[in-house]
Amino acid sequence: MFRVISRDDRSLARAGELDLAHGRVRSPAFVPLATKAAVKGLEPREVEALGYELILANTFHLFLAPGSELVEEAGGVNRFMRWERPVITDSGGFQVFSMGHGTVADEIKGRGRPGERTGSVLAIEEEGVRFRSYIDGRERFMGPETSMAVQAALGSDIALVFDECTPLHVTREYTARSTERTHRWLERCLRWHDGHGPAGQVVYGIVQGGVEHDLRRESAHTVAASACDGIAIGGSLGQDKAQMHEVVSWTTAELDRHAPERPRHLLGIGDVDDLIAGVERGIDTFDCAMPTRLGRHGVAIVSDPSARWRVDLAKAAHRHAHEPIDPDCPCPACSEGFTRAYLHYAIRAHELTAMRLVTLHNLSYIARLMRDLRQAITEDRFPEVAAAFRAGATPGRSAG
Amino acid sequence: MFRVISRDDRSLARAGELDLAHGRVRSPAFVPLATKAAVKGLEPREVEALGYELILANTFHLFLAPGSELVEEAGGVNRFMRWERPVITDSGGFQVFSMGHGTVADEIKGRGRPGERTGSVLAIEEEGVRFRSYIDGRERFMGPETSMAVQAALGSDIALVFDECTPLHVTREYTARSTERTHRWLERCLRWHDGHGPAGQVVYGIVQGGVEHDLRRESAHTVAASACDGIAIGGSLGQDKAQMHEVVSWTTAELDRHAPERPRHLLGIGDVDDLIAGVERGIDTFDCAMPTRLGRHGVAIVSDPSARWRVDLAKAAHRHAHEPIDPDCPCPACSEGFTRAYLHYAIRAHELTAMRLVTLHNLSYIARLMRDLRQAITEDRFPEVAAAFRAGATPGRSAG
Repeated sequence: MFRVISRDDRSLARAGELDLAHGRVRSPAFVPLATKAAVKGLEPREVEALGYELILANTFHLFLAPGSELVEEAGGVNRFMRWERPVITDSGGFQVFSMGHGTVADEIKGRGRPGERTGSVLAIEEEGVRFRSYIDGRERFMGPETSMAVQAALGSDIALVFDECTPLHVTREYTARSTERTHRWLERCLRWHDGHGPAGQVVYGIVQGGVEHDLRRESAHTVAASACDGIAIGGSLGQDKAQMHEVVSWTTAELDRHAPERPRHLLGIGDVDDLIAGVERGIDTFDCAMPTRLGRHGVAIVSDPSARWRVDLAKAAHRHAHEPIDPDCPCPACSEGFTRAYLHYAIRAHELTAMRLVTLHNLSYIARLMRDLRQAITEDRFPEVAAAFRAGATPGRSAG
Repeated sequence: MFRVISRDDRSLARAGELDLAHGRVRSPAFVPLATKAAVKGLEPREVEALGYELILANTFHLFLAPGSELVEEAGGVNRFMRWERPVITDSGGFQVFSMGHGTVADEIKGRGRPGERTGSVLAIEEEGVRFRSYIDGRERFMGPETSMAVQAALGSDIALVFDECTPLHVTREYTARSTERTHRWLERCLRWHDGHGPAGQVVYGIVQGGVEHDLRRESAHTVAASACDGIAIGGSLGQDKAQMHEVVSWTTAELDRHAPERPRHLLGIGDVDDLIAGVERGIDTFDCAMPTRLGRHGVAIVSDPSARWRVDLAKAAHRHAHEPIDPDCPCPACSEGFTRAYLHYAIRAHELTAMRLVTLHNLSYIARLMRDLRQAITEDRFPEVAAAFRAGATPGRSAG
C-alpha cells in the first residue's frame, strides 16, 4: 500500500504514495484534523480544493457521539461527512489517557486540548480504560478491541492501534511499563483486526517510549517486528523542539533499518519548522490541530521564522493594516483581498467568517509547504529547499 | 434610482430595479444581514453566488466597533468586508432604543436579539440618545446627525434615517409622541445628508405609528411628503401575523397613492409566508435575521406550511435520517449530499461547518423564493404562484 518513489540521499527525507481504500495520498503530507467528523468551519470540498488528500477523525469523540453504530449505518465516516478521500482515525488512546493524566497532557506539543471537557478516568487496567463520558456522564469502556471495533465501524482507511500516550512528567519506570503494555495492546489490536477488520483498512502500530533513547529504540523494534502496515510515532516527544527532533531521529533511524518500506506518521506535530525537520528525518505524514486551531483564534501562518511563522491578527498592531495577510498568497482569504484590519476586527468580534478565513489561509500555507517539500525530494533539491524555508522563503514561490 | 418594471394587476405586487452606487438590485428581494460587516459564517462571494444583490450592515454595531472612521479609512463598508455590490445600513435607532425598551423589544418579530449584551440607555432626548457602550462601557451618543454621519463614513448605498422603533407594549400616546419625533428626526437627517451625504448614497425615510391606523397613515403621508429617496416600514407591526399584514397593508396603500414610484423596504420581516404577504402588499425589499440565525441553530427552511416552513434538525427525529434536507434542493448543503443525520449530529456538537451548511440552505431557499415571486409578477402569474407557495410548492420548481 506504500511505495517510496524518491529518496533524498543527504537525509532520510522521502517522497511516496500511499494507496488506500478511498484513494491515493502523496507524501510527505500534512493531515488536517476533522476531529468530530468536520474540519471546523470548512466543507470537505474546500479542504480538497486546498490540495489535501487525507484527513484525521477522532475515534474517542465519534465513539461518544454520534456513536460508531450511527456512522456505520450512514456508510462510514467518509460518506457520513461527505469526504470522498481517505481518512485516518486515531485510536482514542490519547483522549482516554488525557483524562487520567489531566492537564499535564497539555504539555505535549499540539496534542493537548486545554479547557476541553474530557470526562474522567475511573480505572486503567490491562484490559483497557473505564471512564465517564463528557457527553452524558455515563460510564464507558475502551480497550484495544473496543478501539479497533469502533474504527472498523467508522470504516476509516487507516486505523491506529490503541496505545497509552505517556506524558513527559512521569517516571522512567512508568514509561517503561506503559510502553510494554502498549506493545501487548498492539498485538491484541492486530489480532482483533485479523479476524474482524474491514477489507481495505490498514493498521498502524504506534511507537512509544517517551524521551528515553533505549525505550524508543526498543519500541521501534517491537512495532517494526509486528505485522502492522504502517508506523506512527506518539507520546511525549520532549520538552523543547531540539529534544523532539532528537526523539524523532532515534525512532526513524531505527525504523529505516528495520521497516524501511512502511509509511511513518508523526502524531500531533504541525509547526512549520517541525514539519521540515520531520520530513528531513523520514516522516511521511503528520497531523496536528495547530493550523486550524490557530486559525480560529486569528493567528495566521506567515513566512517569518523569527516570529515562529505566526502573526496574531487580534493584536492592536493590525487595526489599521489595510493589506492582506500576504498580498501574493493564493489562499481564499488573501486572494479575495480580506485585509489584516478586517480580520483583526472580525476575529475580535467573534465572527465565524473570520475564523474560517484564517483557517483557510493556514491550511493553504501548509499544503503548499508540503507540496514544495515533496517536489524538492523528487528533484534532488531537498536540503536547499528546506534551508530556504527555514530562512523564511514562502511556499509556492519556487524556493531553493 | 428605482424603476417599476412590472405590476401585478390583482394586488400591489410589483417587480422593479434599484440602481444604486454599487450596482443594480432586482426587486422584490430579500436582504441578508451582515450585521457586523459579515454574513455570519459566509464569505461575500458565497452570498453573491446564492443570487443576492444587496445586504444590510448595522450602523450601531459598526459605530461601536471597529468605528466608522476605521471603515471609512478602509474605503467604506463594501470594500472593508469585500462585498462588491450594494449595502443598506440601518440607522442604529432600533438598537439604541432596544436598550431602553429592554427585552420588550424582543417581542417585535424577528428584530429582537434576546440575550445580546446591548449596553444601557442613559437618556432619550430630542437631540438623540445617550447610552453606555456594550463594548467598553464608555458613554456614547447617537442622534439623527450622528447616525447620518456614521452612515456617510460607512459609505453604504442606502442610508436609513434615525428613528425610534416603538414597541407594542407602549401607550397610544407614547407611540404618537415618538412618531412625531421620528418625523422631526427625518427632516434633520435629510438636512444633514443634503449638506454632507456622500455622492450616490440614497436615503430612506421610515414610517412608524405602531398598530394605530391613523398614526400609520399620518406617518406614511409625512414620509411620502419628504424628500427621501425610498421608504422603510418599521416599528411594532402587531401581535400576530394577521395584524402585521394589516399594518403593512394600511401603509403600502397610502404609499401607493402618495409615493408610488419610491422603493419600499419592510424592516425585520423574513418568514416565508410574510415575504409572500409583503410582496403582495407592494413591498420591494425585506431584511431579517431569520434565515441566517435559524441556520446557526440548525433550523432549516422547508416547503411545509403546516410546520411554518421550518424543520428543527437538532430534534431526535433526525438522528437516523440519512437523506438531505431536500434531495432536490440545489443548495451547497443538499447538493453535496449532507444528510439530516449528519447535520443533526454536527449541530448538536456545535460544529461551525453545520451552522454554515444550514445557513447556506436557508439563504438559498429564500433567494429562489424571491426570484420566483419576481418572475411571477413579470409573467402576470403572481396570485397563482403565491397561492402555490402558500400551499407548499418549492421555489425553483416552476410553481403555479
